[in-house]
Amino acid sequence: MTISDAEQDALKTKERARLGWMALMLTPEMGPTRIARAVARLGDAARVFEASLTELEGAGMPARAAQFVFDGRARTAAEDEAKRVAEAGGFFLTREEDAYPQRLLQIYDPPAVLWCRGNSALLARPGIAVVGTRQPTPYGLGMAEVLSRDLGNRGLTILSGMARGVDAAAHKGALDTRGKTVAVWGTGIDVVYPKENKKLAEKIVESGGAIVSEYPLGTFPAPQNFPIRNRILSGMSVGVLVIEAGEYSGTRITARCAMEQNRDVYAVPGNVTNKGAWGPNTLIKQGAKLTATWEDVWEDLPSQVRLQLEEEMEALGQVESKAGGSASLFNSTDDKPLPQQEQWVLDRLRRDEAMQLDELIESLEAQMGSAEIFAALFELELRGQVKQMPGKNYVRCF
Amino acid sequence: MTISDAEQDALKTKERARLGWMALMLTPEMGPTRIARAVARLGDAARVFEASLTELEGAGMPARAAQFVFDGRARTAAEDEAKRVAEAGGFFLTREEDAYPQRLLQIYDPPAVLWCRGNSALLARPGIAVVGTRQPTPYGLGMAEVLSRDLGNRGLTILSGMARGVDAAAHKGALDTRGKTVAVWGTGIDVVYPKENKKLAEKIVESGGAIVSEYPLGTFPAPQNFPIRNRILSGMSVGVLVIEAGEYSGTRITARCAMEQNRDVYAVPGNVTNKGAWGPNTLIKQGAKLTATWEDVWEDLPSQVRLQLEEEMEALGQVESKAGGSASLFNSTDDKPLPQQEQWVLDRLRRDEAMQLDELIESLEAQMGSAEIFAALFELELRGQVKQMPGKNYVRCF
Repeated sequence: MTISDAEQDALKTKERARLGWMALMLTPEMGPTRIARAVARLGDAARVFEASLTELEGAGMPARAAQFVFDGRARTAAEDEAKRVAEAGGFFLTREEDAYPQRLLQIYDPPAVLWCRGNSALLARPGIAVVGTRQPTPYGLGMAEVLSRDLGNRGLTILSGMARGVDAAAHKGALDTRGKTVAVWGTGIDVVYPKENKKLAEKIVESGGAIVSEYPLGTFPAPQNFPIRNRILSGMSVGVLVIEAGEYSGTRITARCAMEQNRDVYAVPGNVTNKGAWGPNTLIKQGAKLTATWEDVWEDLPSQVRLQLEEEMEALGQVESKAGGSASLFNSTDDKPLPQQEQWVLDRLRRDEAMQLDELIESLEAQMGSAEIFAALFELELRGQVKQMPGKNYVRCF
Repeated sequence: MTISDAEQDALKTKERARLGWMALMLTPEMGPTRIARAVARLGDAARVFEASLTELEGAGMPARAAQFVFDGRARTAAEDEAKRVAEAGGFFLTREEDAYPQRLLQIYDPPAVLWCRGNSALLARPGIAVVGTRQPTPYGLGMAEVLSRDLGNRGLTILSGMARGVDAAAHKGALDTRGKTVAVWGTGIDVVYPKENKKLAEKIVESGGAIVSEYPLGTFPAPQNFPIRNRILSGMSVGVLVIEAGEYSGTRITARCAMEQNRDVYAVPGNVTNKGAWGPNTLIKQGAKLTATWEDVWEDLPSQVRLQLEEEMEALGQVESKAGGSASLFNSTDDKPLPQQEQWVLDRLRRDEAMQLDELIESLEAQMGSAEIFAALFELELRGQVKQMPGKNYVRCF
């Protein structure tokens, strides 16, 4: 197959436009709105490389920005960035490309350029953002993981911010699902934050997921970037699911963004005595959908999204009978063998006598850490195989 | 003070009418609706003692019931019951008396007669039903007691069914409060059920509360009576607060009654892994008000009820400042100095006039990019220092 001259020209034109967007993105004093306005006035992003200083200023660019573009610094920066992105195994998408997440274009100020790593096809898929506190309870962690897995298994992509706590649990839950997971970062795609999630970041990419950011390579975690990032998280999603969030938390910002962007907000209720339940409970008061199982999200998905996912499942032979599919939280026992760790925990517990958590942890210390025991207990509880009694005592169910 | 003949006659007439209602209440095959219809057609409850068989049947009474009244058995039963009620230290109220709880008349089938013990004045007070499972978690027990106490302290009467668990905790929470507590029983007012609550029953009466039932003395606990009783519980209340309730529970019936009777339903959310949270969480999905504190109930009370209670509190010197009480998702102010960028944004905004976002961005372009302005606006909004108006206009709050 040969490429005609015309095709080569088209490719070059496209590449010049991409570089134009990138140049504007790296120009000081230019935010998403100004960039969009400048390109609209110039007619084409590639025109920034040919425009006069007057034209640039006429396109709404502040003097310093116009100068930066006009004297070629923007172009150099863009070429350099494009090269480094490729070297880092990433890619970038401009807002006029088809691969750019189209849903994100609906928001007030979509980023002109997105830096990405991983599976670009995933960015076009319908997804839901799962967010919450960095200090979750075991309940919050378990809900984040289970709901993300259940929704991911049905083809919905799980987006989150890869922060500690709920975010990380959401990504983990969705890793091995059909829906995969997308991490939206507040740093450059080459700057993992927090460091402890380095492995998780690699797993996200290896498992067919993606990492997305509107920040240039090398951007370090700056506190102000994370709230700004949250608008992308909700903007790329059809809805936002809030798990646990305290009274003063960034999660509220994401929920707020979601409301402003006309995204559905879902929230997992919790005991009002748990500080982390304040956020979701308050959101529910304000109209968020109370979410106890994946079905609560499913039944409120935009109908075309739900139809798409259901058709895919049908094609994959994953049809769930409506009767059997309503896996309520309290009666989903399946016959699969238990994961090893859950089996260990279950084996320790008795039906006729409760075992105190500390005792359980001691008895298993050769095999598992306490965090793994929490996770296993949570799964067993959800499946109704273990019951928690007051005072962190556990019994096995019949 | 002497009683005139005319007054004595009036008293006798009233007593005969009361006895008429009671006679109909004790007549087989006569329920609340038939009794109400019969009295309406006869013109006066006392007329049952004079009416012919034909008249009684003409008033919609089945043959056996008419016969029971006509041959005097109903009258004997009524006189006997009235005497025994007095001996038991109780009293009864017919639906045409002023002391009968007027709110209960709004329901489809108010009892013709209520058997009572304790403080009759309480039945005219506004109250809320607090109900839930007989097997609560410590969380459910605690919430029942605390919310009942908090609402009782503000003068709201707490009604419940005196069952084990949530009901008992609700009564206990309200015992020593100004609002007091009313137990609505599914047995005769001389039959304590469950037995373990005998002491609680005495305390309810001694503390200025009341016990109410539509069942004659000596009626033993029959399972079918409790759901029927629940309509009185909700019918006497301005709203029903559900604490914990499993998937198959009588509490759902009370909530259902409340909805049918146009009473507000309030529900305390809980961890979805707790079976008892199923009821309230599901009710919240269906439109019940999520209730985390007494204020959630308070702010939704019918305005005349709230006004009455607030005036009483004012008279008692128990006024609470409005400002201190309400915590919202998006406003909290502390006295820390603002970060520089937020201060810049705040300085631009005015209290008396909204500023359009684009204008704000332009006016700050020398200092900050649009992304930073978004972040600052978010933070300011979260702290309630800035308010967003439709069309991306911002004002400064007072």
